[in-house]
Amino acid sequence: MIAKLENHNHSISLLTDLYQLTMAYGYWNANMHDKESVFHMYYRTVPFKGRFCIACGLEDLIAFIDRFTFDQSDQDYLASLRGSDQNPLFTESFIRYLGDLKIDCDIDAVPEGTPIFPNEPIVRVQGSIIQCQLLESVILNIINFQTLIATKAVRICHAAQGDEVLEFGLRRAQGLDGALSASRAAYIGGCMGTSNVLAGKMFGIPVKGTMAHSWIMAFEDELEAFKQYAEIMPNNCVFLVDTYSTLSGVSNAIRVGKQLKEKGYQLAGIRLDSGDLAYLSIEARKLLDKAGFKDTLIVVSNELDESLIQSLKIQKAKIDTWGVGTKLVTSYDQPALNGVYKLSAIRDQKANWNYKIKISDQKAKVTTPGVLQVRRYYNQERYLADMIYNVEDKIKDKCQMIDPHDSTRRRNFDGNDEFRDLLVPVYQKGEKIYQSPVISKIRSYAKTQVNHFHPTIRRLVNPHHFPVGEEQSLNHLKRQLIIQARQSH
Amino acid sequence: MIAKLENHNHSISLLTDLYQLTMAYGYWNANMHDKESVFHMYYRTVPFKGRFCIACGLEDLIAFIDRFTFDQSDQDYLASLRGSDQNPLFTESFIRYLGDLKIDCDIDAVPEGTPIFPNEPIVRVQGSIIQCQLLESVILNIINFQTLIATKAVRICHAAQGDEVLEFGLRRAQGLDGALSASRAAYIGGCMGTSNVLAGKMFGIPVKGTMAHSWIMAFEDELEAFKQYAEIMPNNCVFLVDTYSTLSGVSNAIRVGKQLKEKGYQLAGIRLDSGDLAYLSIEARKLLDKAGFKDTLIVVSNELDESLIQSLKIQKAKIDTWGVGTKLVTSYDQPALNGVYKLSAIRDQKANWNYKIKISDQKAKVTTPGVLQVRRYYNQERYLADMIYNVEDKIKDKCQMIDPHDSTRRRNFDGNDEFRDLLVPVYQKGEKIYQSPVISKIRSYAKTQVNHFHPTIRRLVNPHHFPVGEEQSLNHLKRQLIIQARQSH
Repeated sequence: MIAKLENHNHSISLLTDLYQLTMAYGYWNANMHDKESVFHMYYRTVPFKGRFCIACGLEDLIAFIDRFTFDQSDQDYLASLRGSDQNPLFTESFIRYLGDLKIDCDIDAVPEGTPIFPNEPIVRVQGSIIQCQLLESVILNIINFQTLIATKAVRICHAAQGDEVLEFGLRRAQGLDGALSASRAAYIGGCMGTSNVLAGKMFGIPVKGTMAHSWIMAFEDELEAFKQYAEIMPNNCVFLVDTYSTLSGVSNAIRVGKQLKEKGYQLAGIRLDSGDLAYLSIEARKLLDKAGFKDTLIVVSNELDESLIQSLKIQKAKIDTWGVGTKLVTSYDQPALNGVYKLSAIRDQKANWNYKIKISDQKAKVTTPGVLQVRRYYNQERYLADMIYNVEDKIKDKCQMIDPHDSTRRRNFDGNDEFRDLLVPVYQKGEKIYQSPVISKIRSYAKTQVNHFHPTIRRLVNPHHFPVGEEQSLNHLKRQLIIQARQSH
Repeated sequence: MIAKLENHNHSISLLTDLYQLTMAYGYWNANMHDKESVFHMYYRTVPFKGRFCIACGLEDLIAFIDRFTFDQSDQDYLASLRGSDQNPLFTESFIRYLGDLKIDCDIDAVPEGTPIFPNEPIVRVQGSIIQCQLLESVILNIINFQTLIATKAVRICHAAQGDEVLEFGLRRAQGLDGALSASRAAYIGGCMGTSNVLAGKMFGIPVKGTMAHSWIMAFEDELEAFKQYAEIMPNNCVFLVDTYSTLSGVSNAIRVGKQLKEKGYQLAGIRLDSGDLAYLSIEARKLLDKAGFKDTLIVVSNELDESLIQSLKIQKAKIDTWGVGTKLVTSYDQPALNGVYKLSAIRDQKANWNYKIKISDQKAKVTTPGVLQVRRYYNQERYLADMIYNVEDKIKDKCQMIDPHDSTRRRNFDGNDEFRDLLVPVYQKGEKIYQSPVISKIRSYAKTQVNHFHPTIRRLVNPHHFPVGEEQSLNHLKRQLIIQARQSH
């Protein structure tokens, strides 16, 4: 991608699937392109067998939309595409139309850092159907990935029980953006910093790092390598001790640590990057404590994820800081979020909403019709339930929500319950009315939000249930449309 | 990432781990920074239990190196970093040194599309140790990911037995580059095209696409949706038939196909995106054939990977074109390649090579010393063996290679064997002397190369062995260094 960025004036508006453009061309030819429509982006099942995801990626999505325009090079490229008969796929007038196109739809989204449940809209796009389609692929690309990584980070930090977690994933990430966006999402999900310097520069994330094995190997022996490092950077000494033999590495670190102390500096930490981390951390701690280095931190790395961290915690490993790389930034055990983007309403010729549903043999794949919003109810202690509703229904304060998986399970809200709606306006008629918070705010917001749920929903395995339902009229509409659709096919 | 690209003048030279910079600072302070060193990037184990990988990513790596410079904003950022005592991490003079730094090392690499085996260097960097370190993280990021996806694509195309495979992964890829670089790598690995329009524009890959479910749902019924599409784009008709009920969708496609025929066009294809693809494709084929649409292709998509494709092939599913998305572009069952980058030699004060090794309790993690090259032997029919050797050893035509896993297994080359060396010069003293081939050439080169091995090494499960060994003197050097290292720790 780097190779080509410069030659394309950085227009990335063609980051879409070709079928969005052929459909756009179809709508335009059929003179349907300005029909007002509503699409929602949501995910169907929670990754990692968890209970919720952390919404992430909105800032990047806004950046994409802000710069959205098909420039001359995009238009030239589209004019070069051919159909099976070798005639142009698109007419010149359509390509000119695209060249003049400005995004002028309404976009609502859940703020980054918000915990969200399956089937709850994360992004809602309302506007001409052609624009809704042209944004689909990029919404999915950005939100799916960044939400996945923020969610993975929450799990990993949960397993670390408040210890510092650092993200070290650059070298195994899926490309540049796989690294950079992952560093940002991991920070939002609770990591304390990253090794990725460009992510630090771009996003204002703390960066961390000291030495690799190559530093040790570049000297005659390990002791000399530590000494030289301490001489030059006495204020950043975390010695990597496993190049030759971990516990003798710890002894060397202690020797140099004593010299640091004499000069008024601290041995900040040691890092273990291989071997049995439970055994080695416990033994290293004993050596450090015995030598008077009770404040020296033990940092570990080596293919860590939430289950390995949890296992090390159970074994009472003496670890202070967890460096997590590949398993976090690639979301190794589930490298994609199954987010989708579905049409749910389109205006008919009388400007009434024609609600749309896509049925499927798999119940989980049935879509929800309407212009959707999510209402999160809470009391002083915690969040109580989420109700998905159609904003076109005039929902009263007193209302009922129905469990879509079991319609006999219902919950009444009596009008005294406090709530807030999760989707907030981001663009109105194409005008941006939302400002992304600074990243530190997003990060602390995510933490506060997660803490507002009962702690048992954070459990890594078999987490506690949280009620998410459909407002009664929406549930009825959906049921009715499913029955209609099943009868006619 | 999009959000921040514009504000940073596109300098991405800080795409590195902080420890590369702290080590660089250390080498510079110790006046060791210009010591000539050699590092190799290679992978340790083959992903997907296969036998080989396809090298990929060199073009992007070259683009990174060509534009490598720490610009003013990079320098300002580095000056802002602080150690534990709140003093600057780096001195101004070091940052000025970085600002003036030009890459002037020798870089050799295996051309993109070349099949490579574990422990064979893919990239070799020889030059001042500071430069070798500053390139480490980005080499790993780019080559690991793109090699992984090209390799996955080869497997998927192998399972498809010559059928057309299309890459549809944008919506679930790991970010922008996770999509774009994956589209390119997938094409190199054998895919015929992508849905990703920007990848098509950037890399000259064929783009494919027609319609999604939303097109069907935007009309009163499916038949009307097909008719309208055929009216507008008669030269690009692949109808998605599963929105309501697949086989009645096929009947609707046939009705519109007949109208297309009357106008001199073809019903190019139908696409199945859900349900039992074996059953539905066989039944759809019958319907199409009976109606005289023998040339209409059946395209399928829906969470496909090489094992599902192989299973459908065994079931004699009637599928012509395979649309593969998430499982390909995220390399779902193994989302990271375990490539590493290791120091193997450093000049001592007398300018002799001091060979380096990193030992480990895990034999697979022991590194190989030397300035390495790979010699691939072949006869008229096929490739015979790969021999890793140290270019500093004056290897004679007659030589012996030793299996590093079993030193009793040896192979003699008598001087009559043909061979070529896999690593080719890319930069000499920082000057680029290599021009990346056009992508179509890389793609056909990859195919030819893979076909030069015995076909049994392509088998998806438990593939045939291919001999890779170490030249005798290298093997002895390595053994000797291991014994030395084990004795001294």
